[in-house]
Amino acid sequence: MVADLVPPVSDVAPELIGSGPMPHDATFALHERGKLRTTSTVPLRDEHDLAMAYTPGVARVCEAIADDPALAATYTWTSNTVAVVTDGTAVLGLGDIGPSAAMPVMEGKAVLFREFGGVDAIPICLDTTNPDEIVDTVVRMAPSFGGINLEDIAAPRCFEIERRLQERLDIPVFHDDQHGTAIVVLAALRNALRLTDRALGDARVVISGAGAAGVAVARILLAGGVRQLAVVDRGGVLHAGRTDLNPVKLRLAEETSGWGISGQLVDALDGADVFIGLSGGQVPEAAVARMAADAVVFGLANPTPEVHPDIARRYARVVATGRSDYPNQINNVLAFPGVFRGALDVGARRISEGMKLAAATALSQLVGDDLDASYVIPSPFDERVASVVAEAVARTARAEGLVR
Amino acid sequence: MVADLVPPVSDVAPELIGSGPMPHDATFALHERGKLRTTSTVPLRDEHDLAMAYTPGVARVCEAIADDPALAATYTWTSNTVAVVTDGTAVLGLGDIGPSAAMPVMEGKAVLFREFGGVDAIPICLDTTNPDEIVDTVVRMAPSFGGINLEDIAAPRCFEIERRLQERLDIPVFHDDQHGTAIVVLAALRNALRLTDRALGDARVVISGAGAAGVAVARILLAGGVRQLAVVDRGGVLHAGRTDLNPVKLRLAEETSGWGISGQLVDALDGADVFIGLSGGQVPEAAVARMAADAVVFGLANPTPEVHPDIARRYARVVATGRSDYPNQINNVLAFPGVFRGALDVGARRISEGMKLAAATALSQLVGDDLDASYVIPSPFDERVASVVAEAVARTARAEGLVR
Repeated sequence: MVADLVPPVSDVAPELIGSGPMPHDATFALHERGKLRTTSTVPLRDEHDLAMAYTPGVARVCEAIADDPALAATYTWTSNTVAVVTDGTAVLGLGDIGPSAAMPVMEGKAVLFREFGGVDAIPICLDTTNPDEIVDTVVRMAPSFGGINLEDIAAPRCFEIERRLQERLDIPVFHDDQHGTAIVVLAALRNALRLTDRALGDARVVISGAGAAGVAVARILLAGGVRQLAVVDRGGVLHAGRTDLNPVKLRLAEETSGWGISGQLVDALDGADVFIGLSGGQVPEAAVARMAADAVVFGLANPTPEVHPDIARRYARVVATGRSDYPNQINNVLAFPGVFRGALDVGARRISEGMKLAAATALSQLVGDDLDASYVIPSPFDERVASVVAEAVARTARAEGLVR
Repeated sequence: MVADLVPPVSDVAPELIGSGPMPHDATFALHERGKLRTTSTVPLRDEHDLAMAYTPGVARVCEAIADDPALAATYTWTSNTVAVVTDGTAVLGLGDIGPSAAMPVMEGKAVLFREFGGVDAIPICLDTTNPDEIVDTVVRMAPSFGGINLEDIAAPRCFEIERRLQERLDIPVFHDDQHGTAIVVLAALRNALRLTDRALGDARVVISGAGAAGVAVARILLAGGVRQLAVVDRGGVLHAGRTDLNPVKLRLAEETSGWGISGQLVDALDGADVFIGLSGGQVPEAAVARMAADAVVFGLANPTPEVHPDIARRYARVVATGRSDYPNQINNVLAFPGVFRGALDVGARRISEGMKLAAATALSQLVGDDLDASYVIPSPFDERVASVVAEAVARTARAEGLVR
């Protein structure tokens, strides 16, 4: 969830308001009893209301859906619901903390779905890390939901789980750590290159990190027109000759030719136009200094970017981070609420590559003539964001014939 | 879900407000886009709010729970959530209509949980009817919830599913069609016998129906002190000598001696003090006429009681139905919101027999000195109901040492 992270932890200092065995600070106080509630949209004042909303009135609604299953979208809340599903194995920067400890993040995600997208999202934290069991469980729950947002599931299992769910379900399945990040990065990169008069197809792009976010960003950049792409993991630049790669990385190695480079990250950065950090490692200043003129540096690890923005700015024209306290915050909340809003609005069967590209385009276009080195991506609190993303996603779903 | 049913379908006549291929009436209009929403309890106006409710602030909350799992009850919504789980096999009187068509009922149930119990209930409609798969699925989802309300799962599978879930989970698992009905029937029967100066242990009680509700009512009556009990299914009075009984019915046959009677329902009613209909069949007037003086007749099938109340009143002192348009409505909503409210309030590990009996006692005592042949059970809209049931359940859970 690299790109979901906003300001560094130090921004939210514990404000002590009590003492005792537990820290009683404002953040903990805010989370007491959770951050989500259900509410009813129907009145329930008397027996007439009860008879309308529940039995016996509801029986006719059930019968109508039994006769025509498509009516479930009209007469239940499922057409507006998304399950936020995790196994708790890759939560924020905390790693494998298990399903119960992951719940505050999933509730937070559900709150963002509600506030930014008008989506009813339900956190589902699973007590299994077995891909077969995760897939079977989500498939069995699926009639209750209009979409599945996978969250904080460790790579490489996340790729297999998402693929198998997409094969078995007829509703959108979207691993936000992959595709939310990818959409926002592509949108920001498009504008960064526009500002510096370069085309995606001409830029030399280096991605550091081949986990969920790194793989997905690489894929969307290829789909978006990047031709010179090097992905680097701890073993160096991915290439088809390496024998230490898992199948996902091997496939990616076959798809990314780089530009004849090999070696480690510092070698790849020599003359590169774009650096995208999705690894959490630190990049030496000397390596950044060797990038091309008008370089673009996205250090997206949180709370500590791969290149501190103050250092990056010495050498790069455009700098972005995952933090809210520096310009150009790459934040997933720019993508997922609008993506699901649009998909749910048209009853999309899945989120296609075209829909993701359209979301990125809409997001980058929102910047418009205000484009500047410190404004290549809109603010999460720009109220236009979710609706323009939703419109782009819905329009593309219709055009691609992916709607019910 | 026999005892959940309120007025007959004819009470809610389609009020046509349009025309077209679908009936556009007030009930359908009410159900459009469903009856449930999620809402956020935290502000999300700016980046400071986002940093508190989501990343990075949430990370410390996650870490605290990872260190001490008991804190999940304090800092997540799980301590107030109940999954309303169905496989759609026994929905209202409609039978096996599948998970999607069951959703309007489950949403309605969630609305009742919210409005009457202040519980955040999430409808989960499962795309499997296999008991192993249902059990595994619910166990894997369980970290997301503080309790499991099983709903509209056909007998006899419902008994096995509930038992296995109770064995595997450390949170309340409650099949409402069984135990909600049982609690309310026992409460009403206590008052009916008090009115006619009889003790539970002396009354001859006949239950018609050995499905989910019939079995659970029989069990709670035995636990509550009934000694002369006959349970009748289509094959007649259950007794240990019958060779056509499933294991659940056979066990019940061994526990219910009757009073030396055998034969069919009409034979059992001869001289009986109490009839409890949970079958949907029709009882001939002549059979009701042969019951003892001051008889008690609960015809709980909906929309058509086993004995019409106008006929029952000719012979019986106390008459109850599942309908809101006659006195003494036996409605599950009198039990489940308060039962879960009380269990969640104290972090109960399960719903014991003692907690169910305490709920029934609290419910019957609420009638107090207003006891009358037309008032043996409170109204679902009596605002005291959920809190007195919750208090009794919570107190008993503590007394029995069943709390976390």
